[in-house]
Amino acid sequence: MSKGLPTREEDYSAWYNELVKRADLAENSAVRGCMVIKPYGFAIWEKMQAQLDLMFKETGHQNAYFPLFIPKSYLSKEADHVEGFAKECAVVTHYRLKNDDEGGGVVVDPEAKLEEELIVRPTSETVIWSSYKNWIQSYRDLPLLINQWANVVRWEMRTRLFLRTAEFLWQEGHTAHATRSEAEAEAEQMLRVYADFVEKYMGVPVLRGVKTASERFAGAMETYCIEAMMQDGKALQAGTSHFLGQNFAKAFDVKFSNKEGKLDHVWGTSWGVSTRLMGALIMAHSDDKGLVLPPNLAPTQVVIVPIYKGAEQLDAISEVANKLGAELKVQGLTWKFDDRDTHKPGWKFAEYELKGYPIRIAIGPKDLENGTVEVARRDTLEKQTYALDDHLPQTVASLISEMQQNIFNKADAFKSEMTSNADSYEEFKEILDTKGGFIYAHWDGSSETEERIKEETKATIRCIPLNNPQEEGTCMVTGKPSKERVVFARAY
Amino acid sequence: MSKGLPTREEDYSAWYNELVKRADLAENSAVRGCMVIKPYGFAIWEKMQAQLDLMFKETGHQNAYFPLFIPKSYLSKEADHVEGFAKECAVVTHYRLKNDDEGGGVVVDPEAKLEEELIVRPTSETVIWSSYKNWIQSYRDLPLLINQWANVVRWEMRTRLFLRTAEFLWQEGHTAHATRSEAEAEAEQMLRVYADFVEKYMGVPVLRGVKTASERFAGAMETYCIEAMMQDGKALQAGTSHFLGQNFAKAFDVKFSNKEGKLDHVWGTSWGVSTRLMGALIMAHSDDKGLVLPPNLAPTQVVIVPIYKGAEQLDAISEVANKLGAELKVQGLTWKFDDRDTHKPGWKFAEYELKGYPIRIAIGPKDLENGTVEVARRDTLEKQTYALDDHLPQTVASLISEMQQNIFNKADAFKSEMTSNADSYEEFKEILDTKGGFIYAHWDGSSETEERIKEETKATIRCIPLNNPQEEGTCMVTGKPSKERVVFARAY
Repeated sequence: MSKGLPTREEDYSAWYNELVKRADLAENSAVRGCMVIKPYGFAIWEKMQAQLDLMFKETGHQNAYFPLFIPKSYLSKEADHVEGFAKECAVVTHYRLKNDDEGGGVVVDPEAKLEEELIVRPTSETVIWSSYKNWIQSYRDLPLLINQWANVVRWEMRTRLFLRTAEFLWQEGHTAHATRSEAEAEAEQMLRVYADFVEKYMGVPVLRGVKTASERFAGAMETYCIEAMMQDGKALQAGTSHFLGQNFAKAFDVKFSNKEGKLDHVWGTSWGVSTRLMGALIMAHSDDKGLVLPPNLAPTQVVIVPIYKGAEQLDAISEVANKLGAELKVQGLTWKFDDRDTHKPGWKFAEYELKGYPIRIAIGPKDLENGTVEVARRDTLEKQTYALDDHLPQTVASLISEMQQNIFNKADAFKSEMTSNADSYEEFKEILDTKGGFIYAHWDGSSETEERIKEETKATIRCIPLNNPQEEGTCMVTGKPSKERVVFARAY
Repeated sequence: MSKGLPTREEDYSAWYNELVKRADLAENSAVRGCMVIKPYGFAIWEKMQAQLDLMFKETGHQNAYFPLFIPKSYLSKEADHVEGFAKECAVVTHYRLKNDDEGGGVVVDPEAKLEEELIVRPTSETVIWSSYKNWIQSYRDLPLLINQWANVVRWEMRTRLFLRTAEFLWQEGHTAHATRSEAEAEAEQMLRVYADFVEKYMGVPVLRGVKTASERFAGAMETYCIEAMMQDGKALQAGTSHFLGQNFAKAFDVKFSNKEGKLDHVWGTSWGVSTRLMGALIMAHSDDKGLVLPPNLAPTQVVIVPIYKGAEQLDAISEVANKLGAELKVQGLTWKFDDRDTHKPGWKFAEYELKGYPIRIAIGPKDLENGTVEVARRDTLEKQTYALDDHLPQTVASLISEMQQNIFNKADAFKSEMTSNADSYEEFKEILDTKGGFIYAHWDGSSETEERIKEETKATIRCIPLNNPQEEGTCMVTGKPSKERVVFARAY
C-alpha cells in the first residue's frame, strides 16, 4: 500500500477502479473484457451466492446445469429475443488446433470447422426451453422451478470490473407454470427475494418497479427490476425478473395437458442477478479509506491485531486473542488473528480498513495490564476501549448487528436525499446536472419521448414503481396527459 | 417408469446409459457432447462440491475465478503442455452476429473477426500462471493456494454422460510454492484429500499411485492419481494431482525473491476432480433396480411413503410422518414425505429404488394400529418392521451409518476380488478377457512396451502404487528385469 486511494470527490470513477484493485477484489485479465476475481473478492461473492441459493431453495427451486454453448439457430427462434439480444456474442466456429507447419506454435485447423456455429451463452432461455420441451407433458410436471449458477458472455465494448465485463458470473432462474397468474406471481416473488437480499444482506435500499416497454428484456411481457442509488448519484439496476408469457413456450413448442386433458402452452419466467452486485456493494458503501462491507457479507467479520515487542508479549497477547476469538465464534461471528511478523500494526490497520473488515480489535501490552481492548468499527471509523471481560463477545456481536443496520440506514438516508420531483423539463435537467439521483417526473408513456429524453440528457426511465401513486399531470417534455410519475436517472 | 432397466449382465453399457437417464441425473443436449445435468443429478454433485470445498478450505485453499477464454498464444508457452493437451478445443473466432440479409435468422458477422483466436479453457494452467506472474514477487506471497470451480471444454469425439463430455464441471487447484519439497508435499496432500473424499463420502475404495511418464499430465513432472474399480471390471481414474516442478513458472516467468533476496522460479502444483466422479459413483454401487447412493451424498436420505385410502387415513399418517421427520432432522438426517395423490405407493417405491433414496419408510393403516413402520434399505433391499417409538429416529440414524460403511465394504471386497497378479503375458491376457479388474504385473519400465501392451490388449498402466513393495522380477512382455509390479487395467 503505497499511498491512499483517489478520493470520491476528486474522481469517483478512478476511486472505484483503484479500490477494486487495491482491495484485491478483481483485476483485468489478458483477455479483453474478462476479469479475474481474486480470492478476497470471490469470498464475498461466495457469501452472496450461499445466501441467495438458500433463498431460492426456500422458495422451492432446484439447481441444474445446462450447456455453455447454444446452436446459432436457437437464437432465431424467439423473434424479439434475437432482435434485442443476441448480437454481441462469442462465436465458436472450429473445434481443433494443430501445430503450425512453420513452427509458430499452434494454429486453428481449417478442417475442423463446425457445420453450425455455436454461441457462448449470453443467457440461457433458448437452450433451457429446448430442454423443457422434453421435460413437460402434463400439469403434473408443473410448476418446473429451476435455477442455474453459470458464467455467461456478452461481448461488451466498454468494460469495467464487476459492472460490465464480457464474461460474468450469475444465476439464472427459469420456471414454467400452468397458468398466467402463477407465472406472474413467480416473477413478482423473485423480485421480492432479490429486494430482500439486497436490502438485508447487502445493506442497499432499492426501488422496486417494472421497466417500460423499450427497457424490457427481449422476449418478456413484463420486466420487474430493483434499482439502487450509488454515491455519485447514478442508479444501478441490481436485479431483474421477467414474466415471459407464453413466448418461449411457443418458440420452443412446450405444451402440457391440463387436468381436463386439454393441451396448452406453458407460461414462463426468468430472473437473474450477477457479479454486477459486487459493483453495487462496493459503490454503495465504501469511503475514501477503502471498502465498507456490511457484516452479513464480510468474509471475516472481526480481525484481532496484536501490538507487541518480542516473543513474550506476543505469547501473552496470543493467548488472550485466541480465547476471545473462540468466544466470538460461539456468538456466530467469523474472526482471524493476524500475528504475521512480516508487517507492522500500522500497516495492518490500513490494510484492514482498505479491505473493509467490519471490526478490528487491537490488543497491546497496556491493554493486558488494564484488562482492556481497543475496538474500531469500519463503518463510522470510531474507536472505543472496552473491558476485556465476559461481556465483550456479546458486545461485539451487538455492534456487528448495529453496523449492519447502520450501513443500510445511511444508504437509505442517502437514497432519500437523492430523490427529487421535477415538474418541468428545465428543472429535470437542472437536477440531473447538479445533483443527480432518482427523479420522479411525468411522462406521456411513449417510446419516442423516452428516447428523446435519453438522447438529450443521458437519463433513462429506471422503472415505474410498484404500487405507484396515481397522480394527474402532464408530460414534462410534450405536455401530454400523464397519470403517474415515473423514475428517471442516469445509470450504470 | 415403463419397464425395468437393462440388467448389468445383459448389457452393462446400456444399463449405465439408461440408469443415468431414468433416474433423472443427466441427458444429452442438442449440442453434440454437452450434457444437461438435471436437478436430481445436480443435487448429488452439489453435495460432492460442498464436501470437497470444505476439505480444500480446511487445507488452507481459497477460491477464485479466472477467465473462460485463453488467448491462443498462451497454449504454446509451455512446450509439453501444448504438445500433449490443447488440440481438441472449442475455438472462438468472432464476436458478433448480424441479421441475415436474406432473412434466414442470424449469421456470423465477418467483420467481427478476432485478431487472436480465443480458446475455451480445456484447463487453466496457462491463464492462471499468467496472473500469478503479477501476484508473486516475494516469499511473503507464498504459498499461493488457490482453487476454482469452473466449466471446461475438451472436444471429445466419443462422449458419454458424466464419463466423457465435451463440456464438464470440475474444480482445478493451482498452487505456487517457494520450494520443491513444499510443492511435492502439496501434490501428495491433495491426493490424500481426494482419496479420503472418494472413500469416505462416495464409498468407493481407490488405489493411490503415480502415473508412468507417458500417462502424465502434459507439463507435469509427476502425476499422482487415484483409480477406482467399476462393476464391469474396468478401472476409472477418479482424480489427479500434479507436481509441475518449475515448468509453468519458467514458461510464464514467475519468480520470487527469497528471504536472502535471491530470485528464483516458484514451484507449482495443479489438481482436479470433475463431474466424472458422478459416473464413478453411479457405476460403483448401483444395481439392476437403479441407483444405490451412499447416504453421505444422497440429496434426501429418508423418504416416508403413506399407504392410505381417503383423507382421514392420510391425515392420521401425515401426523405421524411429520413428527417422525422432525425427529429424523434432529438426528441430522434429510427426509421428505411423499403424499402426492397423483401416484400410487407401488409406483413411488419403484421410483425411489430407481433414484437410490437410502431409506424408505412405509406407513399404512395397519402400522398405525400396531404402532409400527416398515423400513426398507436401498443397499441390501431388505425390509424390516420397527416399532414406531422414541428409539426409531436413532435406529434409522444408525442404519444410515451402517449403510455408508456397508456400501464401502461391498465395493472394497469387490475391488479385492477383482485384483490379480499375472506372471506371464499369456496369463495377463487371459485374466483381462475373462475377469478384467486390476492386474499387478512386471514391466520393463519403457514407454515402448507400455504402448505395445496397450495396442495389443487395450489395457493401460493405471498407476505405480504409492509405497509399492519392491519385488525382483522380469517384464511379462520383454523379459527384461523389473523391480516392482505395476497395475494394469482396461479403463474408462
